[in-house]
Amino acid sequence: MIQPAILLTPGPTPVPESIRQLMAEPIFHHRTPRYRKIFGDVSQRLKKVFLTQNPVYTFAGSGTLAMEAALVNFHSAGDKVLVVENGKFAERFTAIAKAFGLSPIGLKVPYGEAPAPRQIEEMLAKDKDIKAVCVQLCETSTAVLSDIKAIGEIVSRTEALLIVDAISGLGADRLETDLWKVDLVVSGSQKALMLPPGLAFLSVSPKAKARMATAKLPKFYYDLKHYEKSMADNDTPWTPALTLVLGLQKSLEMIETEGIDAVFKRCSENAQYTRETLQKMGLKLFSKAPSSTVTAACLPDGVDGEKLCKIMRDEKGVVVAGGQGEQMKGKIVRICHMGAIGREDLETGLKVLAETLKEMKSSSGSCCCSCQ
Amino acid sequence: MIQPAILLTPGPTPVPESIRQLMAEPIFHHRTPRYRKIFGDVSQRLKKVFLTQNPVYTFAGSGTLAMEAALVNFHSAGDKVLVVENGKFAERFTAIAKAFGLSPIGLKVPYGEAPAPRQIEEMLAKDKDIKAVCVQLCETSTAVLSDIKAIGEIVSRTEALLIVDAISGLGADRLETDLWKVDLVVSGSQKALMLPPGLAFLSVSPKAKARMATAKLPKFYYDLKHYEKSMADNDTPWTPALTLVLGLQKSLEMIETEGIDAVFKRCSENAQYTRETLQKMGLKLFSKAPSSTVTAACLPDGVDGEKLCKIMRDEKGVVVAGGQGEQMKGKIVRICHMGAIGREDLETGLKVLAETLKEMKSSSGSCCCSCQ
Repeated sequence: MIQPAILLTPGPTPVPESIRQLMAEPIFHHRTPRYRKIFGDVSQRLKKVFLTQNPVYTFAGSGTLAMEAALVNFHSAGDKVLVVENGKFAERFTAIAKAFGLSPIGLKVPYGEAPAPRQIEEMLAKDKDIKAVCVQLCETSTAVLSDIKAIGEIVSRTEALLIVDAISGLGADRLETDLWKVDLVVSGSQKALMLPPGLAFLSVSPKAKARMATAKLPKFYYDLKHYEKSMADNDTPWTPALTLVLGLQKSLEMIETEGIDAVFKRCSENAQYTRETLQKMGLKLFSKAPSSTVTAACLPDGVDGEKLCKIMRDEKGVVVAGGQGEQMKGKIVRICHMGAIGREDLETGLKVLAETLKEMKSSSGSCCCSCQ
Repeated sequence: MIQPAILLTPGPTPVPESIRQLMAEPIFHHRTPRYRKIFGDVSQRLKKVFLTQNPVYTFAGSGTLAMEAALVNFHSAGDKVLVVENGKFAERFTAIAKAFGLSPIGLKVPYGEAPAPRQIEEMLAKDKDIKAVCVQLCETSTAVLSDIKAIGEIVSRTEALLIVDAISGLGADRLETDLWKVDLVVSGSQKALMLPPGLAFLSVSPKAKARMATAKLPKFYYDLKHYEKSMADNDTPWTPALTLVLGLQKSLEMIETEGIDAVFKRCSENAQYTRETLQKMGLKLFSKAPSSTVTAACLPDGVDGEKLCKIMRDEKGVVVAGGQGEQMKGKIVRICHMGAIGREDLETGLKVLAETLKEMKSSSGSCCCSCQ
């Protein structure tokens, strides 16, 4: 691979040098006033990205850990949860729910499409026992944005909790946690927060907190009772992923300096630029509800997406993502425009994509749409 | 606090500059041959520190996550597990077991003492239903080393699994996983492996693997079935804590270059030096079974250990650990000698300790032993 590469994947995203250098400073102990001050600051600043007054808990772990924490802390065996299934990551909620003996009800939505809020409304009306609705802010595997505002309005009128997986979307696609009445927001460090992977986050609404008291699924590591208690002292119950938390303080400062609205605007403009450039290349967009986090384009007939990504990465130093899972593999290319990814990198990356497609002798082919 | 400080705490331990600089390089994507090569290498090299042929699984998370994984992957609700309780971390096994509806049987051992293998033997003989024995290699809170070899010999003659928490001890106190018949070894990155916190490890014996098939406790994130499957491709099921894995490759190389036996010898010699120096100061050692990982000394009458540590840290730039938990708080001081902690830092640290004790007008006091 050509070094340094241009990284346009939907996580990990590039980590700014100032953050990398900060994390490379000599380590110090976490059970100290120094760390508690930083962690207290980070926990407050996170709220400004989550757009919430709710507590945001930080775990050492991958995003999947926080998805699991969002289900397990608030449910008991047999509880029905409605899972919008419109991609690989959405379906992970179903897998977790099954593993814990919950009763997931899948709302299957064709890949590339966002869930219709009305369908969720109908399902909740039909079955009053549904305890939670799980949905993706941006389904990373298909680049589809859900209408969380409309879904929040519907779910908030019921007893169910709204769980939003914003692992990739948070800080790129606007998510108004409080205004849109989202109970649990899951996120991770390696996306719009511009950090290496290893931190996971969960914000918890008062409605969700009230449910905790009756939830019976077994848990320890991510049991929020431990985190609540420690948070009162700006601390964590177990050893935190210290260097990543230090980096997080810096990245949150950077986001605040730019302004969260300016960040959303930048991601949105870069997303629009990406969509337009892909369409000018003759590619069709895969997502019918495009996001500011990542864009997916269908590949022309005869172009193997796996091979395309490999050539771009190994021969041209531009790293983009292909399709994930059986249904999508080789059929789409995904370009990310969140976090520290700038317009210049997008321009270069998209140019290299166009060149590579041309070299693969497929520039004349129209989109096969077989990916849909 | 004076910067840079000398860090003598039992985790996090100092991270060598070469590792920190490596982790600060531009990030790359983990679903690539480049990462799989590194992770495959790391997974093999880990075995040389665990002294095992068993697979060693790497999680994104704190050590506590791997303790939980060691219990949950191999048990069903109601299972009896024998927990040696001789310190704060030992007792965490009991807390986890209770949280998951297991039936922990506590073998209470006075703080400062190692468990008597014969007692474990008697308890296993009396109750054939005991499914596992949980014990600390080095109980970090009391600096006590267990006789894992003797315990392994006993447990291996039964159906029970031997779970050893080696979070702090691995790579400092010799643990012959295979020779001593240990089924599950738990560890973490921020101790003798010289990395920041954020990675947890678990090695799994064939005897333990056979138990997995019948274990019914719910799990997903650390369900070893997912890890086994991914490990075949040198991959992880969820996004790994990428930068820490890169650092791990470097730290494992450093350990191999020095030689694991030389590392054990160095830690042992530094431990002996620490014990002798503390005793020359007139302090009594707290642990009756001293370890090469960390040493604990009782403080003289009238010396507040919390205050001592604070003065050393804030005014003299030497960070040592005090006592943990209600029973030990303020009563002991703990000095670590594993990982990248060298003799020079120990010399300085112990000199500063002696000076500070003197300044606290307590150098003439004999050990109160109230800490025992």
